[in-house]
Amino acid sequence: MPDQRPVAITLGDAAGIGPEIIAKAFAHPSAASGCVVFGDARIMQHALHLLKLEPKLSVAVISDLTQAMNLPAGVIPVWQVGAEIDPPPWGQVSAATGRLAADSVRAAAQAALNGLVQAVVTAPLNKTALAAAGEGFPGHTELLQSLAANHLGVSVDQLPVRMMLANPELRTVLVSIHVSLRQAIEAVTVDNVLQTLGIAHNSLRNAQGGPPRLALAGLNPHAGEGGLMGREEIDILEPALELARSLGIDASGPYPPDTVFMRARASHGQANAIDAVVAMYHDQGLIPVKYMGLAHGVNVTLGLPFVRTSPDHGTAYDIAGQGVADPSSLLAALAMARTLSTRVL
Amino acid sequence: MPDQRPVAITLGDAAGIGPEIIAKAFAHPSAASGCVVFGDARIMQHALHLLKLEPKLSVAVISDLTQAMNLPAGVIPVWQVGAEIDPPPWGQVSAATGRLAADSVRAAAQAALNGLVQAVVTAPLNKTALAAAGEGFPGHTELLQSLAANHLGVSVDQLPVRMMLANPELRTVLVSIHVSLRQAIEAVTVDNVLQTLGIAHNSLRNAQGGPPRLALAGLNPHAGEGGLMGREEIDILEPALELARSLGIDASGPYPPDTVFMRARASHGQANAIDAVVAMYHDQGLIPVKYMGLAHGVNVTLGLPFVRTSPDHGTAYDIAGQGVADPSSLLAALAMARTLSTRVL
Repeated sequence: MPDQRPVAITLGDAAGIGPEIIAKAFAHPSAASGCVVFGDARIMQHALHLLKLEPKLSVAVISDLTQAMNLPAGVIPVWQVGAEIDPPPWGQVSAATGRLAADSVRAAAQAALNGLVQAVVTAPLNKTALAAAGEGFPGHTELLQSLAANHLGVSVDQLPVRMMLANPELRTVLVSIHVSLRQAIEAVTVDNVLQTLGIAHNSLRNAQGGPPRLALAGLNPHAGEGGLMGREEIDILEPALELARSLGIDASGPYPPDTVFMRARASHGQANAIDAVVAMYHDQGLIPVKYMGLAHGVNVTLGLPFVRTSPDHGTAYDIAGQGVADPSSLLAALAMARTLSTRVL
Repeated sequence: MPDQRPVAITLGDAAGIGPEIIAKAFAHPSAASGCVVFGDARIMQHALHLLKLEPKLSVAVISDLTQAMNLPAGVIPVWQVGAEIDPPPWGQVSAATGRLAADSVRAAAQAALNGLVQAVVTAPLNKTALAAAGEGFPGHTELLQSLAANHLGVSVDQLPVRMMLANPELRTVLVSIHVSLRQAIEAVTVDNVLQTLGIAHNSLRNAQGGPPRLALAGLNPHAGEGGLMGREEIDILEPALELARSLGIDASGPYPPDTVFMRARASHGQANAIDAVVAMYHDQGLIPVKYMGLAHGVNVTLGLPFVRTSPDHGTAYDIAGQGVADPSSLLAALAMARTLSTRVL
């Protein structure tokens, strides 16, 4: 039986392309059906006014999240977060949009933690606007991690998360992200690699209906070639894989980095398909996922107690308000959120 | 006026797929016209016997390289290197095939250094067979570098080379190749980066008919984001770029590694196309080139006094002698050799 709870879409920064692409997503037949926008009704109406979509869409503020599932087609359900705000000038940083964006994420996360929505899809934030609003976290992931840890009564350190970037052909889960390459090498430890494999396993298991097949990329060229070009594969990755397998995780490798992503892509849709590649550092995993283009890329935070996805682009202030923003990545994020929150029995 | 000299194809290891894919290349109308095989006539006849191609091909030993340009279609010109050898068992290492392979490379390189062939395309070697034959170099690049340095009367250190991997959509030139990722970071120096830009510029300039447009990838995520995630972009890459530009090299960057290859691919065929991306280390450059598959990948050694390309695969001992080997990469290597040795006026 399909999940009867709605999918939350957060508004993102109201001066960016978030409201436009959300409105365009609702214009796609069935794509956003069963979704609810956490944000501001007036901002969404402003976006509709800008876009002049045919057939016309309208906005309805709901007071109970279950109402989102029962509205007629063409009506965008909005969970109003705080008081309505005046539409800001497009493409300008302001504290008001930063605060609304953060509060929208808080409300959606709380609904997810309380089991009232099945997943959270976040439209892009502007970090400067967040700072202008006095928000103390740099982005979505840190805020969501903090809210979830608080809800579970654990410290943030006890709730490790990992970034997955996915498109229809390839998924990669990253051991580390925004650190220098030198620091990324230091972050390749048995603990971190095992934790990444475990988070990927747990996050993808439900949707797969069984243990996902994980491929571990090496750190060095040719995966070290028996220690000739680096020993991390022997000293770190093989022990981590052995521990992972002893925990029932279906993980193999370490594979030569230059071909494992190609092989994973080529295996897509086949019987023994690789479900995700665990990559050692930011660019190793993101170069292949982005290589064919960004339109269908989805960013997923794994390790939270709920499913969270987002489009793989920013607020695009330079084109906000022109009606030209492409909703493809948001649509892909919505589809991925449903896939990952589905429990295959 | 097109180059009137033939393109040399070296036999490679005779127990591998080299002879088969060379024969298949000659079966493609026009693909190998104007090429000459440096190797062994009996081995090539053995490959033809295996393949039973229609229309039938034959082998002719030539005594002057200019003869290669004037043979009728369907005749494979062979420059016999040493005495003919008996066809070895498929897929087995032997000193005899190792010696023949090395001698074929020596003969072809000498012909190129003497201006008798326009380019050298090398079929794959087996390193164990080379060692069994008592050859003291690990692969093609080192042998070619040594022969060329000797010919020019300089030391090998004075003849730095770089690897380029190319397919029809993307070319990447690598600052370093077969070293650990830690060592690769240490190899990112102003000298090495500038040298790589210079070699790429000089090697591609003739074929482009002007300075090639080079894009330099960063080392760190987001190209360091202003020093927040590593300082190599500020301390090393920007100074190297400045020096390169002062030498008339058309180089820009450093660009975020996760999108520069995507952008270069997307620019292919457009007015401002990026002609090559200079990558900081092995996997950064090879992950994107290999992502869509290996069939059309070509390995190019830049920096030699002649053009040298090779298919991007090995001897494939496991399928040698079955007639199933795919000549696509060799055909791509032939086409690339002609492209790079063409002087656009």
